[in-house]
Amino acid sequence: MTRFKLTLEYDGGPFVGWQRQDNGPSVQQALEDAVFAFSGERVTSFGAGRTDAGVHALGQVAHFDLVRETSAATLRDAVNFHLKPNPIAVLGVETVPEDFHARFSAKARAYRYRICNRRAPLALERGRVWQVQPPLDAAAMHEAAQRLVGHHDFTSFRSSICQAASPEKTLDRLEVRRAGEEIEIAAGARSFLHHQVRNMVGTLKLVGEGKWSASDVAAALAARDRAKAGPTAPPEGLYLTEVRY
Amino acid sequence: MTRFKLTLEYDGGPFVGWQRQDNGPSVQQALEDAVFAFSGERVTSFGAGRTDAGVHALGQVAHFDLVRETSAATLRDAVNFHLKPNPIAVLGVETVPEDFHARFSAKARAYRYRICNRRAPLALERGRVWQVQPPLDAAAMHEAAQRLVGHHDFTSFRSSICQAASPEKTLDRLEVRRAGEEIEIAAGARSFLHHQVRNMVGTLKLVGEGKWSASDVAAALAARDRAKAGPTAPPEGLYLTEVRY
Repeated sequence: MTRFKLTLEYDGGPFVGWQRQDNGPSVQQALEDAVFAFSGERVTSFGAGRTDAGVHALGQVAHFDLVRETSAATLRDAVNFHLKPNPIAVLGVETVPEDFHARFSAKARAYRYRICNRRAPLALERGRVWQVQPPLDAAAMHEAAQRLVGHHDFTSFRSSICQAASPEKTLDRLEVRRAGEEIEIAAGARSFLHHQVRNMVGTLKLVGEGKWSASDVAAALAARDRAKAGPTAPPEGLYLTEVRY
Repeated sequence: MTRFKLTLEYDGGPFVGWQRQDNGPSVQQALEDAVFAFSGERVTSFGAGRTDAGVHALGQVAHFDLVRETSAATLRDAVNFHLKPNPIAVLGVETVPEDFHARFSAKARAYRYRICNRRAPLALERGRVWQVQPPLDAAAMHEAAQRLVGHHDFTSFRSSICQAASPEKTLDRLEVRRAGEEIEIAAGARSFLHHQVRNMVGTLKLVGEGKWSASDVAAALAARDRAKAGPTAPPEGLYLTEVRY
């Protein structure tokens, strides 16, 4: 029995999310089906982040155990072959000790949220970014974002269905910068609550529009009430970019 | 009668190309249908570059004449509305003098070609880049590309169906640079022959793989024979980025 760690890229568009669900195709199921096609083994895979429907990954990490002896390189190429035509790619495979766990061993996770800030509709980036038409002040968004960095009770930015034991998290960074018509928000933490990044982005958009100040963001955080923060940004702008161990 | 200049972005994937053809949907037809839906006028539009099937645009320019009086901003929003759900966006509209011609008035055109140089299949960039699996030497490609810059007879890089009167063109720049697993090739000239950028890229790929030297590229150019240069790179990596007047 060997434990394998996989790094995955995927387009979240066609999936109900990472996790297996009854209502549609999941990344987890597609991966496990590809492993079965190669090995004949029905494995259970564990992902570092349970990305929601429509959320993309550039560096999701998953692990599973295989009885069949195979090299990491063979597994990578075979799983990629059997994943077709799903928009999922195995970027790398490593063998890891049997106490490695993609979710519980993770020391840091990084997400990127992409906003396309323009009036014209999207042609090439459809499903890849959140289009916001009113001009956003990215510098004001960045300044307000710093009020969220640190150790806090993030109840105001937590989905009502979040299963985490505690709403307290340490947000290591939340950086907003503009490059042309694109605004990129980079978030880093050991772990995040359900919808935390999308709820923070939806709130920062209010700041970018000039409707909220940085103090309003701080007040929303202090309220520990989901109803006091901004709306949830849509999934298509969110990317799980990296998981560190 | 007013002449309007439009700047367009599109995903070339679903189209037979810019130009109207019998065998499928074209960008030109979609644009003219949208203008008709708004104005009731059957216009003929002229594009700066006749992009092929699958080739994208970030800054295609087109013009047409409209009898109906309307502002540039109204035309932009109305055409965008009627273009849905085509992956075509009008980025901007200007009124121009009646002697302006999107194709013949153009002083410079810029194209970008994107290669994704990695082993793993594409998930998020499918249809947006040319995937090349063997490692490419981008510095060698850039050096070889300089042999093509300048005024030359580009017969070796010209499609057999090219309708240009002369195979002589002045290539202003051809720059190759790597950013991570992506290699970007930027080409600039007053105008290009049919398939010229894709044929140059297909040839530079041979250099990147170490199969050809810069001297081989110079010899291919000097041969004035399409059979002496490399294969045509696929359309999905090519973007018409800018047209200057």
